[in-house]
Amino acid sequence: MTIETALEELSSLLGQRLSRSKSDLEQHGASESHFPLTPPDAVAYPESTEEVSEIVKICARNGCPVVGWGAGTSLEGQAQAFQGGISVDFRNMNKVLRVGAEDMDVSVQPGITREALNTELRATGLFFPVDPGANASIGGMASTRASGTTAVRYGTMRDNVLGLEVVLADGRIIRTGTRARKSSAGYDLTGLFVGAEGTLGLITELTLRLQGQPEAVTAAVCAFDKLDDAVQAVIATIQMGIPMARIEFVDEATAAAFNGYSGSDMPLCPHLMVEFHGSEAGVQEQAEIFGEIVADHGGKGFEWATKPEDRTALWKMRHHAHWAVLASKPGAKALVTDICVPISRLADAVNETRADIEASPITGPILGHVGDGNFHAILLFDDENPAEVQAVEDLSHRMVERSLAMGGTATGEHGIGVGKKKYMDAEHGAAWDVMGDVKQALDPQNIMNPGKILRGN
Amino acid sequence: MTIETALEELSSLLGQRLSRSKSDLEQHGASESHFPLTPPDAVAYPESTEEVSEIVKICARNGCPVVGWGAGTSLEGQAQAFQGGISVDFRNMNKVLRVGAEDMDVSVQPGITREALNTELRATGLFFPVDPGANASIGGMASTRASGTTAVRYGTMRDNVLGLEVVLADGRIIRTGTRARKSSAGYDLTGLFVGAEGTLGLITELTLRLQGQPEAVTAAVCAFDKLDDAVQAVIATIQMGIPMARIEFVDEATAAAFNGYSGSDMPLCPHLMVEFHGSEAGVQEQAEIFGEIVADHGGKGFEWATKPEDRTALWKMRHHAHWAVLASKPGAKALVTDICVPISRLADAVNETRADIEASPITGPILGHVGDGNFHAILLFDDENPAEVQAVEDLSHRMVERSLAMGGTATGEHGIGVGKKKYMDAEHGAAWDVMGDVKQALDPQNIMNPGKILRGN
Repeated sequence: MTIETALEELSSLLGQRLSRSKSDLEQHGASESHFPLTPPDAVAYPESTEEVSEIVKICARNGCPVVGWGAGTSLEGQAQAFQGGISVDFRNMNKVLRVGAEDMDVSVQPGITREALNTELRATGLFFPVDPGANASIGGMASTRASGTTAVRYGTMRDNVLGLEVVLADGRIIRTGTRARKSSAGYDLTGLFVGAEGTLGLITELTLRLQGQPEAVTAAVCAFDKLDDAVQAVIATIQMGIPMARIEFVDEATAAAFNGYSGSDMPLCPHLMVEFHGSEAGVQEQAEIFGEIVADHGGKGFEWATKPEDRTALWKMRHHAHWAVLASKPGAKALVTDICVPISRLADAVNETRADIEASPITGPILGHVGDGNFHAILLFDDENPAEVQAVEDLSHRMVERSLAMGGTATGEHGIGVGKKKYMDAEHGAAWDVMGDVKQALDPQNIMNPGKILRGN
Repeated sequence: MTIETALEELSSLLGQRLSRSKSDLEQHGASESHFPLTPPDAVAYPESTEEVSEIVKICARNGCPVVGWGAGTSLEGQAQAFQGGISVDFRNMNKVLRVGAEDMDVSVQPGITREALNTELRATGLFFPVDPGANASIGGMASTRASGTTAVRYGTMRDNVLGLEVVLADGRIIRTGTRARKSSAGYDLTGLFVGAEGTLGLITELTLRLQGQPEAVTAAVCAFDKLDDAVQAVIATIQMGIPMARIEFVDEATAAAFNGYSGSDMPLCPHLMVEFHGSEAGVQEQAEIFGEIVADHGGKGFEWATKPEDRTALWKMRHHAHWAVLASKPGAKALVTDICVPISRLADAVNETRADIEASPITGPILGHVGDGNFHAILLFDDENPAEVQAVEDLSHRMVERSLAMGGTATGEHGIGVGKKKYMDAEHGAAWDVMGDVKQALDPQNIMNPGKILRGN
């Protein structure tokens, strides 16, 4: 009962599709974040649910950790094998299994990426709306309960996964949910696995809710003198019930990074980037009301992007913010914070964070999904400078403390992984123990993504 | 360690607020449904979370069942104490604790009813949208994952509960969720307790998402020659992305019952009842497009209700459907079915059900929340006529079989309780065992609403 025995058995099961090559192990030991390289013992490339089940059974018999791998874009170390074991890479399980055009749903394998799914859906007039920016895998997005720029309108993965197929820690295969739009039939297991980061089982199939391509889309950027004004404009827009499809905030430092990276010429001040989806008349009306709200709050320089290519350029710029900010300080590492607070506290949270960063030696542009109260500071640091490392950790820590004190969360969309475990007690108290009870019930050996989310595992 | 010991301890804790009067026991042993009277051993009327915790601790020490009681409107026996024990009636825990107007949320105690909450919210310009028809308690609505006429626009209780306070089976008090709009911080315990029907703990506080009162509301009724046409009109409307606030189907038998009960003069044919929420121009546009779709599908006799009192009359009639149908056959009992299928199968499901009912000796008007694929047949029978009882059970059984075969669920919104337990295996398979594992982990003594939802408890 050792990892070596597991590797032998997995090798006979998978042949060449079990890899122990150095490059494979290193690739699956890294992330886009600030964690050290932690290669797994092997990488498995299953091609079916049954194979995933066999892999997990072998690992269960041998007490070997199992860690799911989608596109490797998670930010809190979720897909890294900190305790070794098998990285289960879903790249070969990336098919669209069924498109239900009339029901506006789709069943997919977990390895398909968000962009690949939407490419496949294009001819149907439907799209999958959740958009975290990164071209993440759908299985990974479900596992970390991802959201992003469109959550203000379409919700997070919690709201867009109708059902799952899951391989449990003992290899059993279960299905959760149905193809009906709603159900009251017992515990919401779909919701339990979404956001569990692979600690309760491996997702092998997902049924997703789709949206119709809107008849009309329009996007805009506008500038504000003060952050407060931008945030108050967002609150007013939400309270008017205007159905924004996206509403994003970027601060002056982010605007500067965009200018340097994308060749834009944004004035160096806070901005809102917004998008409306609907009928021609509906979008027009929403845009007009939004324009009035923005003017009331001192917004200016309103630029509408109604042509698809202009909108694409706008959101591409927004989605490349991480790289734009990194490029603004060559050689720097980034720690990306991710707090989410009640909207009423958003201006306070951003202002206090801004002041805190300014009082530190650290550069940290702020941007975020203000319609949800969720924002990020991208804290840049030299990882060989202990004072900067410490300053970044302190800033990140104070952001979370601030969020929790305001009734918010330590993570709006990046998840816990290993990076945010230290805040679970403060955020959840005894409810964290309940998560541990559920984990113990479903994975008593603690082989599914050990070390993540839960207390002392 | 007996119920008698528990009663003594509870009596010293609660004094007069522990009742063993016959009328109290009988009231808490009945439901609006077809289950036999099952009085609990006592009814507790706690006034605080701490008291609920003490009640559960006493019951845990004495192995005494604990069953939550809200407004007694559940339909599958969820609030009945089939194994005896303590009925915990939340009528004294019915306060609004906090209104967050800027954040559009509210924290309430579980005993407040839907109508009382909306009355308290009126001055804020906000409302709580979930509307199951019955004036249920909010705690009960969360526990059965209720939905109703507005779910097509605003979602079910799953989508509208942001956080909970829960007393666990050992008396521990936990909080789930935060006041942020979204979070990726660990397992979604809020979602786990919503729909658990009190089998994992008692909800003692809820934070709910609110909506702004729409600027404009308009409602309409229109008639169709054939059911199929009505359903196809609904599918087309959904696919056009028109944001209906409600879209309800009633068949000719229901229309006849309305005429008899409410004095309306609906033609005896299938109808759609619809409501739009939005800006003046938005509602106007939606109504026009919907009118065109209806005309394309042979709909006629379109009547708009733009005045609030006309809309109120319309939805009151719809919400009183249960009583209208019961009144159409004096002395009859009703078994209300509750299947939910993918929209693409809705016409098939309704047509096959209609034919099945017509081939039986039973009267059973059909109506439902067609925007979600959810519909009910209200099967009327004489409970002293064994042939009718059997016929009703057979019809209900075949409806569920039909739903499951179509990828649907045994219950769209009424829940499992004891009435639908027999379908859990067929709907969930091994996932039902996983629910049992979660139950065992959180309530190893099986004192929280025993006998409901789970296999063999």
